[in-house]
Amino acid sequence: MFDVRSIEASTLDPGFKGYPHRAPACAVGEIGRRRWNVMRGDLPFPIAVLKETALAHNLAWMADFTRESGVLLAPHGKTTMAPQLFLRQIDAGAWGITFATMQQVSIGVASGLRRIILANQLIGREDIAQARHLVASTPQLELHVLIDSLAGLELLEGGGAPRGQAPLNALLEMGLAGGRTGCRTADEAMRLARAIAASPTVRLSGVECFEGLSVTGDGADPITVDHWKRAVQEVARQCDAEGLYGTPEVTLSAGGSAVFDLVARGLPMQLSRPVRTILRSGCYVTHDSGFYERFLRQVIARSGAPWREREGLKPALEVWTQIQSRPEPGLAILAFGKRDASFDLELPVPLARVREGVGSTVDSAWRIEKLNDQHAYLRLPADADARVGDLVGCGISHPCTTFDKWRWLPVVDDRYVVAGAIRTFF
Amino acid sequence: MFDVRSIEASTLDPGFKGYPHRAPACAVGEIGRRRWNVMRGDLPFPIAVLKETALAHNLAWMADFTRESGVLLAPHGKTTMAPQLFLRQIDAGAWGITFATMQQVSIGVASGLRRIILANQLIGREDIAQARHLVASTPQLELHVLIDSLAGLELLEGGGAPRGQAPLNALLEMGLAGGRTGCRTADEAMRLARAIAASPTVRLSGVECFEGLSVTGDGADPITVDHWKRAVQEVARQCDAEGLYGTPEVTLSAGGSAVFDLVARGLPMQLSRPVRTILRSGCYVTHDSGFYERFLRQVIARSGAPWREREGLKPALEVWTQIQSRPEPGLAILAFGKRDASFDLELPVPLARVREGVGSTVDSAWRIEKLNDQHAYLRLPADADARVGDLVGCGISHPCTTFDKWRWLPVVDDRYVVAGAIRTFF
Repeated sequence: MFDVRSIEASTLDPGFKGYPHRAPACAVGEIGRRRWNVMRGDLPFPIAVLKETALAHNLAWMADFTRESGVLLAPHGKTTMAPQLFLRQIDAGAWGITFATMQQVSIGVASGLRRIILANQLIGREDIAQARHLVASTPQLELHVLIDSLAGLELLEGGGAPRGQAPLNALLEMGLAGGRTGCRTADEAMRLARAIAASPTVRLSGVECFEGLSVTGDGADPITVDHWKRAVQEVARQCDAEGLYGTPEVTLSAGGSAVFDLVARGLPMQLSRPVRTILRSGCYVTHDSGFYERFLRQVIARSGAPWREREGLKPALEVWTQIQSRPEPGLAILAFGKRDASFDLELPVPLARVREGVGSTVDSAWRIEKLNDQHAYLRLPADADARVGDLVGCGISHPCTTFDKWRWLPVVDDRYVVAGAIRTFF
Repeated sequence: MFDVRSIEASTLDPGFKGYPHRAPACAVGEIGRRRWNVMRGDLPFPIAVLKETALAHNLAWMADFTRESGVLLAPHGKTTMAPQLFLRQIDAGAWGITFATMQQVSIGVASGLRRIILANQLIGREDIAQARHLVASTPQLELHVLIDSLAGLELLEGGGAPRGQAPLNALLEMGLAGGRTGCRTADEAMRLARAIAASPTVRLSGVECFEGLSVTGDGADPITVDHWKRAVQEVARQCDAEGLYGTPEVTLSAGGSAVFDLVARGLPMQLSRPVRTILRSGCYVTHDSGFYERFLRQVIARSGAPWREREGLKPALEVWTQIQSRPEPGLAILAFGKRDASFDLELPVPLARVREGVGSTVDSAWRIEKLNDQHAYLRLPADADARVGDLVGCGISHPCTTFDKWRWLPVVDDRYVVAGAIRTFF
């Protein structure tokens, strides 16, 4: 039901936000034949679009970057929850896909994925039972979950393992003081690692961290990432010395789309058995026009001439809408809001204005200062040429919180003609 | 497809977040027979639930309040986008339902609603065509849209009216300087009103405002609402004097769930033809545990002894999850985040902790200080009794932005046994 063939055969209809009101239902795989044009207003506004050229570029860029860095990629699927994009990520060379919840993992498995990291503690009775069930019933499924406490291990063991089933792969999560999840000290981590090694139903498959929340985009990030790397490597080495791993290969993994270059260069290490390093960056696939765009500049600055000479990741996700009101000279109200675009890290960024099919870029004086549920406040110079009915295209910051507002997104070519459709499953 | 009978016959399955992973698909109308218990962990966490007792109480409370105030109610449907709740609102006496977009209006019409306010400027070509189409093809449909500019009127007229079709009902929107949409002066409004009266395809059905963004919950709100009331009434009276209304009845409407009592008491007026005052408050149906709870205290304080003596609106929407990590003494990480609960006005509020089926309330020292996409940071006293695996129930602030994160919500009885299911259509 979530494999790409089923998705392509499933139909969209006017019940889906952004679908033309009176168009007949259409299979996902046939949407491109309609030749709808976003700039002509064929789809009601607001509409979030994926730009195919940028998507394809980003998929290739990240594949090259990880390959040349010698690391593997399991991009975070929670960003898009779009199996059609998972498949493209795998086709571009990704090792697997990462998820945040067992419901997401289940959709991933149903979409055909066979290498999955649940980058989260597996705690709930229903979730543990589902993980056991998927592993038992899905040939070739390699699933790793996180663990950061003895209490969590007890819950995992409480679920039991179906007779004859291999133990569940657990990545020991390291954290830093003041951070999110993860063991705060090597001592604590080693007590847990020994308990996992002694467990009949769980086995230690590696060590993991999530550095993404403690970086700031400034010159201190290499030092911060170095702290994380040392925390992970110290425990990974000690687990090796004590023979605690239960898998033939040791997995090291870190997440985040902000400083993946530092992770790729810093985290890999040698142990007595093969080690693989897996990045979990998820936002690269669409990139953005705000938060991650700024981090990328640092990634590129740090990554040497070949990376400075080629084009970096490109924003592939835009939200288009119309000016619905010009109540005051310096204010335009746009017909979109918290229901349509990310607003959690930064507000959307106006990029272009289109009137009767003719577009122009807008300058940085055009600034969205606030969103309500269904409206945006666009501040602009008093003499700005902006009329009721004009289209305004916005870049977004933090793709995860725009994707989850759309059950489908048209994929557009460079002229904003709809070439396909991507469904999301949140 | 969106009528309640079709929704009750439609099926939920594990593809819907919050549905048990391995339960067979089940018709919405049959969910109550499963006797799932949220506290027993029968549904995976996180899960947002609607409390039936509070829902029923709120529906009755608001029906009584508006009836006794002599105003009509067209609750904003964008809050829940749940036709099953629209029907209950209508059954409880609501005049109609309000929406923010033509896609929402279309779902409302398909669900059987026949009195609708689109509390927004109707601007897009596709949207205008859809409004014309719905009015032409739906017997008895009474649709009102907002208008606040001559440019907007031109766009509406550009759509044309199908031959023989009644003109589109337009409520002239008044705004205040520094606000959102709406004419800023009576002169501007009157120029627009005269142009509407002269239009062959649009007719003036009343005057409208949205006061909800300029109130603060303090003693100045009555003065603020008085400004709004005067702005609307001045234009309404002048339109009457000039004979500009195109409908037999004049509609006055204001929105918001914060100070609806002030609107109900202040906005009604006498004109030369019948006047009806319609409130558009949408959040009362679930109420909340934050933003609107504070406003409600003022509403009740202002509304006289009978309202102080009966129970006020009750929070009907809660999000339940588990503690997944206790990495530091004063910190618990909860398994939910921006994907699951409102975070735009305020963060969720921990209400109760449940361990092995036994619940206890938590004190105000338990405080959620941050959400990531899929995690929450719960600060608590260093000696707090909070273990990995414990359930934590949270109230939310601003129901609109929790509803849109769930495609269904279980309706629970007072013991958190699932008694039914509500589907949403965002």
